[in-house]
This record gives sequence, C-alpha cells and structure tokens, in this order.
Amino acid sequence: MGEIPRPALVGPIHVVGTGLLGTSVGLTASRAGLDVWLSDSNHEHVRTASGLGAGRPAPATGVAQLTVVAVPPDHIAEAVVEALERGGVVTDVGSVKSLPLARIADHAAEDLLARYVGSHPMAGSERAGPLAATAAIFDGRPWAITPHTHSSAEAIVLVEALAHLCGAEPVRLSPVEHDRAVARISHLPHLLAVLTAGQLAEAQPEHLSLSGQGVRDVTRIAAGDPDMWSQILRANHAAVVEILRDVQADLARLVTVLASGDPDMLGEILVRGVTGTRAIPGKHGGPPLTTASVFVSVPDHPGELARLFADVGEIGVNIEDLYIDHDPGRPVGLVELVVRDTAAELLRSSLESRKWLTHR
Amino acid sequence: MGEIPRPALVGPIHVVGTGLLGTSVGLTASRAGLDVWLSDSNHEHVRTASGLGAGRPAPATGVAQLTVVAVPPDHIAEAVVEALERGGVVTDVGSVKSLPLARIADHAAEDLLARYVGSHPMAGSERAGPLAATAAIFDGRPWAITPHTHSSAEAIVLVEALAHLCGAEPVRLSPVEHDRAVARISHLPHLLAVLTAGQLAEAQPEHLSLSGQGVRDVTRIAAGDPDMWSQILRANHAAVVEILRDVQADLARLVTVLASGDPDMLGEILVRGVTGTRAIPGKHGGPPLTTASVFVSVPDHPGELARLFADVGEIGVNIEDLYIDHDPGRPVGLVELVVRDTAAELLRSSLESRKWLTHR
Repeated sequence: MGEIPRPALVGPIHVVGTGLLGTSVGLTASRAGLDVWLSDSNHEHVRTASGLGAGRPAPATGVAQLTVVAVPPDHIAEAVVEALERGGVVTDVGSVKSLPLARIADHAAEDLLARYVGSHPMAGSERAGPLAATAAIFDGRPWAITPHTHSSAEAIVLVEALAHLCGAEPVRLSPVEHDRAVARISHLPHLLAVLTAGQLAEAQPEHLSLSGQGVRDVTRIAAGDPDMWSQILRANHAAVVEILRDVQADLARLVTVLASGDPDMLGEILVRGVTGTRAIPGKHGGPPLTTASVFVSVPDHPGELARLFADVGEIGVNIEDLYIDHDPGRPVGLVELVVRDTAAELLRSSLESRKWLTHR
Repeated sequence: MGEIPRPALVGPIHVVGTGLLGTSVGLTASRAGLDVWLSDSNHEHVRTASGLGAGRPAPATGVAQLTVVAVPPDHIAEAVVEALERGGVVTDVGSVKSLPLARIADHAAEDLLARYVGSHPMAGSERAGPLAATAAIFDGRPWAITPHTHSSAEAIVLVEALAHLCGAEPVRLSPVEHDRAVARISHLPHLLAVLTAGQLAEAQPEHLSLSGQGVRDVTRIAAGDPDMWSQILRANHAAVVEILRDVQADLARLVTVLASGDPDMLGEILVRGVTGTRAIPGKHGGPPLTTASVFVSVPDHPGELARLFADVGEIGVNIEDLYIDHDPGRPVGLVELVVRDTAAELLRSSLESRKWLTHR
C-alpha cells in the first residue's frame, strides 16, 4: 500500500438540499472561507440559506470539487447520480446507506462510482429547515463515512476532510455495518417508542392521569416527523426487520417468563436491560461517568430556575445533565441535577446553605 | 345515600417500612403535628428516619388511627394483615393493588377487611431509602385510592385525608382498573425500555459510538432496580401480560408492514405514535401546552448554564421543560429550552441580543 494522497478540501462545495443539514454544512464551509454553492427544489430555502451566510445560489455551469447531497431519503440516489454526472467528488448525508448505494450503482455509469462516498453525520433530525441550521451542529459528533468497494482513496479522504472541517469525528464503516448500527441504536429505539406511545393513543384519560416521567422519557422521540421516519425506515427495512425479529423473540420470552412467574428468568431480563444502559458511551465519547443526582424543589415561575443556576454557577460544580420533573399537578417542580458523584455532596450542602430545599 | 362521615385524620399514624415513601409520609405527617410511629425490619432505617424528623420508633403497645404499609411489594400482604389485626384503618402504598388484596382477603378475618383501603402515590421510585425522603415528594401528584367491595366509607375517607395531607390529588379507581392503568403507563414503558436496552448489551462498541440522545431517553428507566421491578411486574403479571400481547400483535404487524414496504400502513403506525405522545396530560394536569423549543449553544463549563438561566430569568419567560444534549464528543452543549409557543420568538431574539447563539 502506497501513501494515500491527501487532496486539500479547497472548494467549491456544492450543497444540494438546503434543509437543516445542508445549510449547516454551508454555514461551516463558508465560515472557513470556501466558496459554497446552494441548490434546492424549494427556491425559498436557497434564498433563506444564502441570507444566513451559508453560500450563494449555484451557478448554471461549473464543477464543484465536492457535492454534498442533503435531500430527503427517497430522493438521495437520484440527486447523487445527477451530481456524479456533473463531476467532482460526491457524498450524501442520509441516515441509511446500503439501499441508496444500490440504486446509485444501478443508475450511474461504473466509471463514475469511484467518486461517490456515502456519509452520515450523527446530528439531530427532529428539527428541520434552513432556519434551524447552525455551524455548531456537528461539533464533536460522530460522522459515519461509508466507502463502498469502488470508492477511490482520494474521494474518501476528501469526504473525511469535510467531516473534519465541520468539527466532527469521522468513523469509517461499511454501508452494511452502518445500517446495522443505526437499526440498533436509532431505528429500534424509535419504533419501540412508537409502539409504547401507540398504546396510549386510545387509553382512558383517568388511566393517563397517572402518567409519570418514565413514560414521557420513553415516548418522547415518537413525536418525530412520520414522513421523514417512514422514508428512513423503509430505506433500512432489511436491517430493521432483522433486529425487530430479535426483539420479537425477546418479547415472546418475556411474556412466557411473566406468565410463568419465574423470578430468576425475569431478573435476568431486567439485569440485561441495566447492562445495556451502561453500554452507551458517556459524555464526549469517554467512558460513562459515575454520576450522582441532587434533587432540588423549585417553585414553577421564571426567576427561580435562574436563581438556582446562578447559585450552581457560583458553587462551581459542572452539571452533566439535568431533568425537570413536570408531572401533572405539581406547583413546585423538582429539578434533578446530575453531577460527578464526587461533587454531589458539595453541591447539596452548598445549595442547602443557600436555602434551597434539596433531596437526594 | 346519606352523608359520608368525614373522620378527621388526627393520628397516630403508624408507618411500617421507612424507605423512601414511608419516610416521606412520616416527614409530612410529623410536620403537620401528628404523632407518627415508625417500624422497619431494618432498625438502622428507623433510626435514620426518626433522626430526619419523620416520627418516633413505634411503641410496643397501642393502636394507631391509620397504619401506612410501605414495604417492598412481596411483603405488603403480610404486613397489612398484621396491621389489621392490631387495629385501626390500614392502607399500603404499593405499585400493584389486586394481587396483594387477594392475598390479604385470604389471610385476614372477613370482619377486618372493612378497615383496609389500598392506595398508590405516583411518586418517584428510582431513588430508595429514608435519606432520599422528602415531604415534597407527593406535592400535586396523583395518589390512586383503590377501595375494594368491603372497604368502609370511613376508611376510604381517612386514606383520602392522608393523600390530601401530603399535598397529593386523590384519584379513586378500583384495584383492577388501577392495575390496568399502571400496566399501560408505567410497566409497559419500563419493559420496552428494558428490551431496547437489552439490544445494546452485546452491541459492538463502534456501533454504540453512533448513539444519540434518542436512545438515551428511551432506555433511561431501564436502569431501575431489577429486584424491585421484578416484584412489581410479577405482582401485576396478568395486566402486564395482557398489554404485552397487544404489543406483540402491534410488533408483528410492524414487521409485516416493514417487510412489505407499504408506506401508507407504516405511516399509520407512526402517526398513531405521535397521537399517543400527545395523549399524555400536560404540566400540572392541564391540557398539553402548545410549546416551541429554542436551542442555545452553551460551552460545557460551570458558569455558562448559570449565565444562561440568569438571562432567561431576566427576560421573564417561563421554562416548561429543558434538555441538555450531551452526545459524545461535543465540547459545546446544546440546551433545548421548551417554552409556550407564543413566548419562543421573544426568548430567541432576547437571547440573541445578549450574544447567545440560538437555533430553532
């Protein structure tokens, strides 16, 4: 293996699709001084995105060094093929990789394929449109880079350079590996949230009045855009069906165990869940922190959270995570401050001395 | 129907089991000036709870006006029967009602049963032990009151008086209705979180490195104590198995729809999930608020959140909910402030004018 050539990313970058992700790429690249061209089937979006400083409307002729396709899942393959025919290296930022690749290979001449490398920045998708865009959205996030067999080394390096430019961490995976990974860590949680929420849709109001924080957490993502999710799930149906079949087996076993009342087997299933929650990497990609929670009663009006966080800031303890408990009917909210376990006692006693009512 | 007698709750109250819930009841009743007696098989817990001001060790003789049984699920029936034999009205605060009632009816003389009324405050269970207790834990929460056929009107009123004393909202349901309700809004979400998390337990680390906020939200409660949950689920296995069978049917249909690629049927399933998330009652038991989110980039060190909330407090907008996005690798956190939709634009522009980087 010789040295891999490292072509610099110098632009122009052509962003096709100026929604949340496309406009965010444009903002980042423009700030880095690159010439960014913007296209979208919705001309209003191009105007908005260029108004935000994400680039300029794409010229009628000319070849970009790198085209970034950021259109809805169902339109990715077509847009990639068109970009390959114009010239230059092409990537896309879709949530699923194998099926679009197969479609692209079906429609693009073979000699064009070397210039295509799929990718997928792991950045929020519940927001949409150019106005939600921000250059910060990729900061420190994983960005999956999914070369196929015929991707050229130059094209791969150029797409990785884009991820670096956006402040993300490139993670190289095959398209199939990528799709299996997101089936497990994104599409499965979404669907089980949907099934849980589905069981609430026809529930009696007096039953729902007993809802606590747990059901709110589990079902939150089920509120995501059904159209977008339908496209994602259909594009990754093979990997999603495979893992759903595993879950069907787990669920059947759970029903049997519950019906039989076997405490040991039920305990095993519950412990496996605890193990799974610990397998998720911690903040900033490091190992999971050992954290502890400090609970604070906070009256539910504007100034109180401010006063709390001003005090937390003065105490100088970093908040790893926080939750507001907003169960029905509480005139006083309970705020959970998650901190490193070594800092919890300091935080609690310092808050108490500032007259906050705390609970561990 | 004549007037229901309303006996005053004057004490003594005998709390059996000084964990989180029992000690919290003791703290509340003691602060209200009632004589509270404390028992626990762990004498250390009684010492801790009385040290916190939750009451005094139970005397060897005497009859309490109301006994509150707050022991682990598997021991509730036995403790209730013992309390009925000592005298006075008896309730318990267990998460499941039908099975313990059947056991109690099997073991207590029939004339004693009139003095028993089950109940279930919907208060957090992920914390444990007397040190986690707080008089505020029941504030404005629903408190299910589950009389059986033979419960006397006086006993029911006395248990409702306890809920009121603790600042909770009594919700009267039959034991069977209660168990169906918690199967749907508590036990099902817990188990689907466990199954989702279980699929992470043996996942490859590079797959897990792509984890975002969604999978963290869905799996959070799966970290709950397996022993406690095993007891709860076994005690409510009939209602839980019933709803799990519905979910099995939903899941089978989902697999079929995904495998067939039918976009309309998949869309229907996803929309039903969206509907379900909207069915959960809003803050303070009112109808769900129409809210909007404002996203703010916040450097990940102590003073910044304080500065943000000081500014939010000065702007005077009430925060309905908030989330910190702590995906791996982000040196800058994204804080999501959920506010009434009518206040979102004011908040965003006011924060921008204070030099915060916001995104919608």
